[in-house]
Amino acid sequence: MAVYTDVSDEELEAFIASYAIGELTSFKGIAEGVENSNYLVHTEAGRYILTLYEKRVAPQDLPYFLGLMEHLADRGINCPLPVRDRQGETLKRLAGRPAALITFLEGLWVRKPGIEHCAGLGQALARFHLAGSDFPMHRGNSLSLPGWKTLFASIRDKADGIIPGLKAEIEAELAELDAQWPDDLPQGVIHADLFPDNVFFLGDRLSGLIDFYFACNDMLAYDVAICLNAWCFESDGSFNITKARSLLENYEKERKLTPAELAKLPTLARGAALRFLLTRSYDRLNTDAGALVKQKDPNEYLRKLRFHRGVKSYREYGLGAH
Amino acid sequence: MAVYTDVSDEELEAFIASYAIGELTSFKGIAEGVENSNYLVHTEAGRYILTLYEKRVAPQDLPYFLGLMEHLADRGINCPLPVRDRQGETLKRLAGRPAALITFLEGLWVRKPGIEHCAGLGQALARFHLAGSDFPMHRGNSLSLPGWKTLFASIRDKADGIIPGLKAEIEAELAELDAQWPDDLPQGVIHADLFPDNVFFLGDRLSGLIDFYFACNDMLAYDVAICLNAWCFESDGSFNITKARSLLENYEKERKLTPAELAKLPTLARGAALRFLLTRSYDRLNTDAGALVKQKDPNEYLRKLRFHRGVKSYREYGLGAH
Repeated sequence: MAVYTDVSDEELEAFIASYAIGELTSFKGIAEGVENSNYLVHTEAGRYILTLYEKRVAPQDLPYFLGLMEHLADRGINCPLPVRDRQGETLKRLAGRPAALITFLEGLWVRKPGIEHCAGLGQALARFHLAGSDFPMHRGNSLSLPGWKTLFASIRDKADGIIPGLKAEIEAELAELDAQWPDDLPQGVIHADLFPDNVFFLGDRLSGLIDFYFACNDMLAYDVAICLNAWCFESDGSFNITKARSLLENYEKERKLTPAELAKLPTLARGAALRFLLTRSYDRLNTDAGALVKQKDPNEYLRKLRFHRGVKSYREYGLGAH
Repeated sequence: MAVYTDVSDEELEAFIASYAIGELTSFKGIAEGVENSNYLVHTEAGRYILTLYEKRVAPQDLPYFLGLMEHLADRGINCPLPVRDRQGETLKRLAGRPAALITFLEGLWVRKPGIEHCAGLGQALARFHLAGSDFPMHRGNSLSLPGWKTLFASIRDKADGIIPGLKAEIEAELAELDAQWPDDLPQGVIHADLFPDNVFFLGDRLSGLIDFYFACNDMLAYDVAICLNAWCFESDGSFNITKARSLLENYEKERKLTPAELAKLPTLARGAALRFLLTRSYDRLNTDAGALVKQKDPNEYLRKLRFHRGVKSYREYGLGAH
């Protein structure tokens, strides 16, 4: 929930006039998304989302994110398309911030995804991976193993204040992942944050993917592992193998997982759980009490991490033997 | 900025299905309004605002507010219209809260209103007062003089912690207003919260009024006094007499102020300033640090109160002699 930057009347008017989209007819801050300020913009030409990029997004990464959206839309992926202004630019400035206007995507995100939603997600994720395969730009994943170590170092001394015993548990986990983390799996563009609030549905039909601001180049199967974490656990912490099977089987209809990817899936799922455990712990320690953001619970991802630690084979995620 | 209540998929689906407005195509929380939770809803039939009424709105007042909106819309006032469901109801429940779906009003609120905006406001306010004259329901103003005394009693001991000397200044002001507050001015339905964020414009043309959740029966000229406070001061605290003249002259094109109303305008303006000074002070003392609401500054209204205390005649608000 976030609108961090307010926009003055004059700035807004000049900004909209720089596009060939007619006059403004409505402008409302959206109470979703924690990284940037988002406004829903109606003009005579249609509906748009105006995003002002706040400090957690590095300005030098914006051409990658905006270029990726254009690349994906070109290849038939339903995702927001950055609008070019009268000069052909997509990345602009507004109210002292980098800013972009993107097309509005219809659909709703599902608060409690069911089996059919996991099916749609699996298929869309694989198509996203295939469509990204010839994207020419490169952005490393700053939130992979080396990044986790840096993040852990910054919270290490206070970790036990969040959850007793957390420091030792993360230390042991990082040591094991360091030994097991693969570096030879198929790589490509990953979304890296494909949680339910970034996937829109109309009824049970997936209508699009949004929020590419964590996208980067990394192992494709790691993206699958993030989705297993984000979509296949119930609110009581239990793992729903039917949802996982639905996700994975539908992913494989578009892109087969390799034997090496399957073998490493439990390790990748541990890494993905650790990644969100670390960022949530960091946010818990570093968010002002007055911040306009609902805090997310680190405990949720500690429980998921422990689940994956007990998984011996990809078959425990619901796939039959390959 | 507020979305206090989240709505589950099943509840939302059933709620929308109770109206004849087609299928949902988009549902986004809006980061505006501090009293209620607001969602922008798109369906196959159009755009709507879904409001969930939070604890600061008394459920027994909702028929008044919703009935007023229907009454005003019937009389050609541009304001949101509550949508009737398949049973003909406008006031419903969702996620454990009273809730209503209202039509979407195009337009933008102006961050820095100019003279022409004050002109549009003056005219719209007078038309609103005339249109409300035959509204049959009645709701007292809980935030008039007796209400201010109650509110002050609840913050009295901590007032000097907000602004040094505030306690004595409010005490003296309340005593003077008690002696001067009129009870014989023309009454009717007032909006009571017609700040710039509740008035929409398309270009310089006023397109509608929103947020009737403080509306009540009180002196019409008190509503004018609230607008003088909310629209005619600059951000540096100075009073802009040109804007005030524009507001008042355009109000009078639709409804003449009586000599008694003109004579009491400075007193009413002091009362209006005190009302917002008190509620902002109360909020300062009673809002959790973690609340998802930007705090408003009580000092702004103390400065406005002091300004009005120095005003001897309505002519200092820019009107010529009547």
